[in-house]
Amino acid sequence: MILCDIGNTNATFLDEGKISRMSVEQFSAYEPKERVYFICVNDEILKKLKKNKLFVDLEPHFELDTIYQGLGVDRVAGCYAVSDGVIVDAGSAITVDIMSNSIHLGGYILPGIASMLKAYESISPRLKLPINSQIDIDALPQKTVDAISYGILKPIVTLLEKLAGSKKVYFTGGDGEFLSKFFKNAICDKMLVFRAMQKLINQKKEILK
Amino acid sequence: MILCDIGNTNATFLDEGKISRMSVEQFSAYEPKERVYFICVNDEILKKLKKNKLFVDLEPHFELDTIYQGLGVDRVAGCYAVSDGVIVDAGSAITVDIMSNSIHLGGYILPGIASMLKAYESISPRLKLPINSQIDIDALPQKTVDAISYGILKPIVTLLEKLAGSKKVYFTGGDGEFLSKFFKNAICDKMLVFRAMQKLINQKKEILK
Repeated sequence: MILCDIGNTNATFLDEGKISRMSVEQFSAYEPKERVYFICVNDEILKKLKKNKLFVDLEPHFELDTIYQGLGVDRVAGCYAVSDGVIVDAGSAITVDIMSNSIHLGGYILPGIASMLKAYESISPRLKLPINSQIDIDALPQKTVDAISYGILKPIVTLLEKLAGSKKVYFTGGDGEFLSKFFKNAICDKMLVFRAMQKLINQKKEILK
Repeated sequence: MILCDIGNTNATFLDEGKISRMSVEQFSAYEPKERVYFICVNDEILKKLKKNKLFVDLEPHFELDTIYQGLGVDRVAGCYAVSDGVIVDAGSAITVDIMSNSIHLGGYILPGIASMLKAYESISPRLKLPINSQIDIDALPQKTVDAISYGILKPIVTLLEKLAGSKKVYFTGGDGEFLSKFFKNAICDKMLVFRAMQKLINQKKEILK
């Protein structure tokens, strides 16, 4: 069985336990030979996939207790895998969602790390700098490269710690592992969304067979 | 006496108590008829100004007790006006600096609000949304427009409150007034940088006359 999570930048596959990735541009030309169960937040790609019966959209089958209007299916899936906790999916965007007793309490969206670095660069050539992955965010920055890295990381971490309280924080997505390093009791789970998709397929066997 | 603060996007003037503003493009063609005391973070503009004797650069005259390497002169000026407190200059970028007993403890840089909105827009057409200026950042968002506004404001506010503790928080810059609304004991001071420039000119009368 092939699972596929299509985001704004990349399509990520799970095929026989192995994760692989291609850009959405490459994915546009991808022709499957067997059934591919997918979720997709990219409207353009989604239109194309609906024309091919080998692509099975899991989105209509997820049931999540939420009052949030228009929650992206990638976030729905992340929440589906966690009954209590904070889910951080750090990709092109960073989405944060809070689950309590299998109820979605709400969530928010931040630009991803690459997108933040581009934002600084667009403000001034003086701010065109890489992230300092070794930064100590417990000390106030004393130079510009740290002022930017701290500016990206510290606000995210401080708010997450405040909102999480004693809840576990689950990190997934391309920058999930990097971000998780700045937390004490973080769980890094690259398979989070795929586990949700697999769980759904198992639960809806009759419909999805 | 004319004072001028040249940023990455705008040049702001103080002339006989009145504030006026022009874009840096317009400013490039500006020819003063009397002496203009200025600070400038825009390297390209700075080169031009050095060729005209009516422009007096205040940057070399500021003395600030700091170990920060390469602190922009706009931030130096903001710190010069505040001996104890947190200075937030919210323009193209949002800079945050902490002063204690006239010593600069460090600071950090965030992309400005307009720049953050552009970053969201560049990630996905679904995220091309305006800021909800009426958002209640004490409640978890339940729709995308709020998820973005919360994502911009709440991390900034949470970290600022944590770092400020009992210190006063001074807001200046184009978005200073808007941002200050999300704080309880905020001081909004559009004149902060000009007050610093005026203070410096008064102190260095002999050199700058």
